Amino acid sequence: MDRLDRQFEFIRELDKEKFITRQTYRSDGISKENDAEHAWHMAVMTLLLSEYANDPIDVLKTIKMLLIHDVVEIDAGDTYAYDENAKKTQAERELKAAERIFNILPQDQAEDLFGLWQEFEEGETPEARFAHTMDNVQPTMLNSATGGKAWQEHKVRLEQILKRNENTAGGSKKLWQYSYEKFIKPHVEKGNIIE
Amino acid sequence: MDRLDRQFEFIRELDKEKFITRQTYRSDGISKENDAEHAWHMAVMTLLLSEYANDPIDVLKTIKMLLIHDVVEIDAGDTYAYDENAKKTQAERELKAAERIFNILPQDQAEDLFGLWQEFEEGETPEARFAHTMDNVQPTMLNSATGGKAWQEHKVRLEQILKRNENTAGGSKKLWQYSYEKFIKPHVEKGNIIE
Repeated sequence: MDRLDRQFEFIRELDKEKFITRQTYRSDGISKENDAEHAWHMAVMTLLLSEYANDPIDVLKTIKMLLIHDVVEIDAGDTYAYDENAKKTQAERELKAAERIFNILPQDQAEDLFGLWQEFEEGETPEARFAHTMDNVQPTMLNSATGGKAWQEHKVRLEQILKRNENTAGGSKKLWQYSYEKFIKPHVEKGNIIE
Repeated sequence: MDRLDRQFEFIRELDKEKFITRQTYRSDGISKENDAEHAWHMAVMTLLLSEYANDPIDVLKTIKMLLIHDVVEIDAGDTYAYDENAKKTQAERELKAAERIFNILPQDQAEDLFGLWQEFEEGETPEARFAHTMDNVQPTMLNSATGGKAWQEHKVRLEQILKRNENTAGGSKKLWQYSYEKFIKPHVEKGNIIE
């Protein structure tokens, strides 16, 4: 039973992602989503939107990546996309977290998930590129749906959003185009995003 | 762009699952988990535990089922497993919800997800059986991890838990055995579950 004990220890550890709050508002525009909800939302998006990937993707592999890629935030915390100071130490904090958390699992599964997490971080395969597209489009969609509230609160400038999204088209040109036209541009026009 | 508009309308609608609270406590034993978190947790569990399925399963199909099967609760609400009155009208309320919500999607995807939701409800394929195993084991694990708090509050009897779990072994004998030995039995012995 040792293998199952380790698997369930990891599964219980994962529960902590439900307490890691992101900067993105849920659709009520009042409460903020957490890492578990964010991962679930992106996994369903991948099921529905994989047809727009620039290159064919392995959908299961992409979903695995998205379901577990924020597990490092259990130790390293959520680093806000526009917090330049926190971003300096992010990679180091997250690597240390990945080493501790994935190694709760039996060795074969620890290596598998650690590899997928690294592949996401490197962002070079079609699956990792598409996963980054999801990771950028999902909060953009919610920011737009909540009247650009998070953008206004953080006084976010269009150039910051464009920089954050510099790889979004790398996974799907079509979804980047849609995200820009439907979620970003209207909020530049309304002044919710500083031009 | 009409197809993408419909897909994103569904993706925005899905956000409402983040507000549907279940009776299961998160690992802090204070706050309760919601449908989105529950679906995410089960999807990761499926990635890690599919090796224990009685019959070989298509992991992607099982995960799809688990990620979307609670979408009907956006209209029908969460029906507590031990609320016998609410369970009488559950099937009718959920079918109506499925018809409205899945049909937001383009027809091909609406049919695909509606079919998966029905397959889960019928519980006859290896994937649907394993998905039910996950749907039963995940809250049992959390109830155990939180000292049996939800069981005590609802004065749950062992026979109710065994009835609720009558299909758990149908997806995985090994996971049912583990769940009974490690999560249920100790709480019967401590008196947190009424024998």
